[in-house]
Amino acid sequence: MKFTISRTEFTKALNTVSRAISTKTTIPILTGLKLQATQTGLILTGSDADISIETTIKTDNPDNLLAVESEGAIVLPARFFTDIVKKLPEETLTIEVGENFQTMITSGPSSFTINGLDANNYPHLPEIETTNSIPLAGDLLKQIISQTVIAVSNQESRPILTGVHFILSDTNFLAVATDSHRLSQRKVILETPINGSFDFVIPGKSLIELSRMIDDNKEDIILSVTENQVLFTIGDTLFYSRLLEGNYPDTSRLIPDSHDTRISFDAPELLASIERASLLSHASRNNVVKITVKPETKTVTIYGNSPDVGNVEEDMEPKSVEGNELEISFNPDYMKDALRSFSQATINLDFTSSLRPFTLTPTEDSDSFVQLITPIRTF
Amino acid sequence: MKFTISRTEFTKALNTVSRAISTKTTIPILTGLKLQATQTGLILTGSDADISIETTIKTDNPDNLLAVESEGAIVLPARFFTDIVKKLPEETLTIEVGENFQTMITSGPSSFTINGLDANNYPHLPEIETTNSIPLAGDLLKQIISQTVIAVSNQESRPILTGVHFILSDTNFLAVATDSHRLSQRKVILETPINGSFDFVIPGKSLIELSRMIDDNKEDIILSVTENQVLFTIGDTLFYSRLLEGNYPDTSRLIPDSHDTRISFDAPELLASIERASLLSHASRNNVVKITVKPETKTVTIYGNSPDVGNVEEDMEPKSVEGNELEISFNPDYMKDALRSFSQATINLDFTSSLRPFTLTPTEDSDSFVQLITPIRTF
Repeated sequence: MKFTISRTEFTKALNTVSRAISTKTTIPILTGLKLQATQTGLILTGSDADISIETTIKTDNPDNLLAVESEGAIVLPARFFTDIVKKLPEETLTIEVGENFQTMITSGPSSFTINGLDANNYPHLPEIETTNSIPLAGDLLKQIISQTVIAVSNQESRPILTGVHFILSDTNFLAVATDSHRLSQRKVILETPINGSFDFVIPGKSLIELSRMIDDNKEDIILSVTENQVLFTIGDTLFYSRLLEGNYPDTSRLIPDSHDTRISFDAPELLASIERASLLSHASRNNVVKITVKPETKTVTIYGNSPDVGNVEEDMEPKSVEGNELEISFNPDYMKDALRSFSQATINLDFTSSLRPFTLTPTEDSDSFVQLITPIRTF
Repeated sequence: MKFTISRTEFTKALNTVSRAISTKTTIPILTGLKLQATQTGLILTGSDADISIETTIKTDNPDNLLAVESEGAIVLPARFFTDIVKKLPEETLTIEVGENFQTMITSGPSSFTINGLDANNYPHLPEIETTNSIPLAGDLLKQIISQTVIAVSNQESRPILTGVHFILSDTNFLAVATDSHRLSQRKVILETPINGSFDFVIPGKSLIELSRMIDDNKEDIILSVTENQVLFTIGDTLFYSRLLEGNYPDTSRLIPDSHDTRISFDAPELLASIERASLLSHASRNNVVKITVKPETKTVTIYGNSPDVGNVEEDMEPKSVEGNELEISFNPDYMKDALRSFSQATINLDFTSSLRPFTLTPTEDSDSFVQLITPIRTF
């Protein structure tokens, strides 16, 4: 194998596949990255067994300055190899595999020889038919991920809850996550109906990595699903993730359909107040913030408290207050995560009683997105 | 005590004194910061017993929006208090100390009450007469610190070597540091001769904190020294550090006054090559990089090697090569620190033999700055 390539373009591709490579893997060859040179392009692969990323640098794009002199494949130690490429002195570099997988990397006066591994021992990527594939706008997918992944569980005691549950049929796209203390659900109406229906759970960690790979442009991303794998195709890059096995709990009945108290806020304003209150609740053993709502006087007051440090009280200026009087306590970190996911929107907080879960929804289009938080009993 | 103040200006001052406050202190009151309100201004003090910082927000500067309603002093938990001030909603805030050192912080609708401590229990800062004081340009002091502090020892086995040794007399200003493997010495000729002579050792850690406080403008900093303390006055801010006790070893004879081989490089170019070579040496148990110099062919070659990963070889393009042939090995991290301290300059590397320390000096003004590195025996 021998090829010359643009250092800039190669570095970008290395950064992409490196996302999948962990130094903590129990399978030694997965600490490496696989390079495969073909006449049409250079294929880079990284994997940690849960996630695999494959990207192709194409010969026919002149920016890549890619010239493949002889085809072949090699596995190179990912971290060292990436560090070396980043620090090379010239704009192009040449890679040549010699005997015993010894690989020479040259760039101007600098010449590295590093020990590679036989690419035949690198695991094969799953084969996913892309006939049944669903196109999604990149920015929408990124938003759906950021809005739901905050509610996945990070406890391995119920593995299924560490993922986001996707339910797709016709033009309906639903994503929901819950760690049993809070829940986040996003609904989207697809422009084109899809063939068949799908029900699968993607690990939260996979979605976070995927999200980091999506630019903020609206490039379409193609989603393809099999029984135990999902594939996202982003331009010349393939992102594979395993799916979580098991049945996701039925969350459809958890969201209350009525309320007795409703207050309305600009999300950033309420967020700033909760952040202040949580400064003190974080110093306490019980991380609890309390809100009192008095519709008569249109007052909403927030309280935070730490026996060691002190306390905070803040009178809010809600956009509206209606319904019954209420006093409710909750984990402010759940509230902060939820509020951030609404970005600049105006939201409704709907309560039934101080011991029942309450919801946050955008005032406009309240059906598309709901965050649910379970309160904390303090008496 | 009661005062109102600009949140922006107060936050700046809190950030300044917080540099001296450690959460790891064994003296509980030092986790707090002291506020003292007087008619002329608000004095903030932070200390970790080694370093103390005092800064004054003056009443007569209208930007400070400072109005002192009643004088007094209090000690508040530094981290919480600073976090609270940063997150307050309005541009000004009011602080009022009530009974039992309970302190109320209000800003718009937000109202915090935190537990303070009696300011009478806060340690007194050292008293330093500022009659014998030496003015230094801020940017020069910052440069001297960055060039010498890299060579201080971080091993407590010889505490005196954890500081930088300053020797001042007449117009001569010398700063030198060594960890016994390398040495860095900077000389400055002062514009105005000083009264008397001074010889003292400032802990490296204090100098690093001091350096972070110096803006890149040329504002004069006033240095005052007593037997066991040094004071740097930077505008309205006082920076105190204890001095290290004991005799600093005589370093004047360590720097060789002749050489048998000299090579010359642009510092950034040599730095880039050493960084590449150290990628592999870092992967090895012996962190060693080798240089060979062949004056006949004007070649300088750098080698790095790791039995596990591979090796690197690079032919350099020196600006000049003269003297005897040489092969020498050294710790590339020492070399990188040294090279960075020359920034963009052209430098000479002077060698006597492969087992004797070698020096790096700027080609222009070689007397003002010298870095010395002890080689590693590899045979």
